[in-house]
Amino acid sequence: MEQRLTLITLGVRDLSRALKFYEQGLGWKKSAASNEHIAFFSLGGMVLSLYSREMLAKDALQPSVGKGFSGITLAYNTRSRDEVDAVLELAAKAGAEILKPAQEVFWGGYSGYFSDPEGHIFEVAHNPFWELNERGEVVLPS
Amino acid sequence: MEQRLTLITLGVRDLSRALKFYEQGLGWKKSAASNEHIAFFSLGGMVLSLYSREMLAKDALQPSVGKGFSGITLAYNTRSRDEVDAVLELAAKAGAEILKPAQEVFWGGYSGYFSDPEGHIFEVAHNPFWELNERGEVVLPS
Repeated sequence: MEQRLTLITLGVRDLSRALKFYEQGLGWKKSAASNEHIAFFSLGGMVLSLYSREMLAKDALQPSVGKGFSGITLAYNTRSRDEVDAVLELAAKAGAEILKPAQEVFWGGYSGYFSDPEGHIFEVAHNPFWELNERGEVVLPS
Repeated sequence: MEQRLTLITLGVRDLSRALKFYEQGLGWKKSAASNEHIAFFSLGGMVLSLYSREMLAKDALQPSVGKGFSGITLAYNTRSRDEVDAVLELAAKAGAEILKPAQEVFWGGYSGYFSDPEGHIFEVAHNPFWELNERGEVVLPS
């Protein structure tokens, strides 16, 4: 098994609401590989997909019932501190709920959290110890 | 906001158990940027991290209570159908629960699901319509 993943799938109750958030709100562009049931967004090397929460659970043979903290967060690292504020503002305008306004955090960075219209949790962070390359990728020491 | 994400954080109740699964079980190598509280695995351009579920919820100012379906799955796309079987076997040997044995699926691929020791859900799939480049990245039509 190689050390990589291909796809993050976010289960959604309302695909058109979620699409509005990612496309019109955040300004992302879905791939032509999308169809009326599933939307794919290229994230460089990986893919984010939006798919019926019900069908996603069914595909994994799991009950779709679930509540409270999902136990997973996704993060968007910025190139500057100011950019954290700007992305949170953009997300809020797009209809996200701000879970935590941007603030200095114990590990030396500056970060805040929002949830998308389906409740998926995103951190927006500036980590002065992590450098992003021109593709926005983090290159960690091996 | 650029169309990208940096980091997937999986909340864990038992970090050493999770590390054993990803390192010894799947054969992944954590980054030297890891410490006793958090582990980072480079996934090419993105990073997977393992962090206390309790602390992760706290960082996002959310109650850590949650149960049932998380609403998120992560997928590992393979280069061949046989590789799906091999990865599921590897995961099972490493202590994963097989949620769905590999099988042909409605969209024309071959896929199965496992959950890691913390219950995070992974799909292992061969999608004959998606090509992976040499880095294991999916390049979707724009």
